[in-house]
Amino acid sequence: MEISHIEHIGIAVKNLDESIKYYENILGLKCYAVEEVPDQKVKTAFFKVGDTKIELLESTNPEGPISKFIEKKGEGIHHLAFAVKDISGSLKEVEGKGIQLIDKEPRKGAEGLNIAFLHPKSTMGILIEFCSDKK
Amino acid sequence: MEISHIEHIGIAVKNLDESIKYYENILGLKCYAVEEVPDQKVKTAFFKVGDTKIELLESTNPEGPISKFIEKKGEGIHHLAFAVKDISGSLKEVEGKGIQLIDKEPRKGAEGLNIAFLHPKSTMGILIEFCSDKK
Repeated sequence: MEISHIEHIGIAVKNLDESIKYYENILGLKCYAVEEVPDQKVKTAFFKVGDTKIELLESTNPEGPISKFIEKKGEGIHHLAFAVKDISGSLKEVEGKGIQLIDKEPRKGAEGLNIAFLHPKSTMGILIEFCSDKK
Repeated sequence: MEISHIEHIGIAVKNLDESIKYYENILGLKCYAVEEVPDQKVKTAFFKVGDTKIELLESTNPEGPISKFIEKKGEGIHHLAFAVKDISGSLKEVEGKGIQLIDKEPRKGAEGLNIAFLHPKSTMGILIEFCSDKK
């Protein structure tokens, strides 16, 4: 498999509007899109930093994965997304090497990208996402 | 202040050698350097992914910050480092906006970079590092 770059870093936040203010006013970054992803029960906000995006995630449902993450660990980095050339092939490759998959097949994520998650139990504690590389 | 890119993502691991194997054998990344940073009580391993590096951190001391982080939260992403043009000026700027600093002045970090940490209590739960931009 070939990872070209870190597509985004997903950060779980309690309050999207307050967090956007922090990234804009303190760090001088600019939010270029806010998008709801009903499938993942989140509202997201995106910032571009070089090659990579920061994706803030606020839960839209107390039963959603981001609510549960914040309950357990507090606000913070939730997942790391790698841009890969061939997402289906990459999933098959890592599964063949013993990695447990959350998504056996790619599905649609934010920004129209094909995405799939690996299970953090088999990836040294980090939730890893593969994204199709649109470059 | 001006952030040019995400310089690196710091990941706390229990066993550096096993983690290097995971990033190399499963994700196909290549470790290009291993370095001990006595000041931070860590041994680090670096991988380049596009613009950004992944920095794995194993504690060399049970009283070190990485040991304490793993005790509390388990293995996972420990900090996010932004490359900034003017590190001293950026520290002064965010301090003036009410952000609590861990390092009031830059100090030497891994790879000879000047670095400084902001306090996660005032940065939405994420430990943020500024690095001098060598580009």
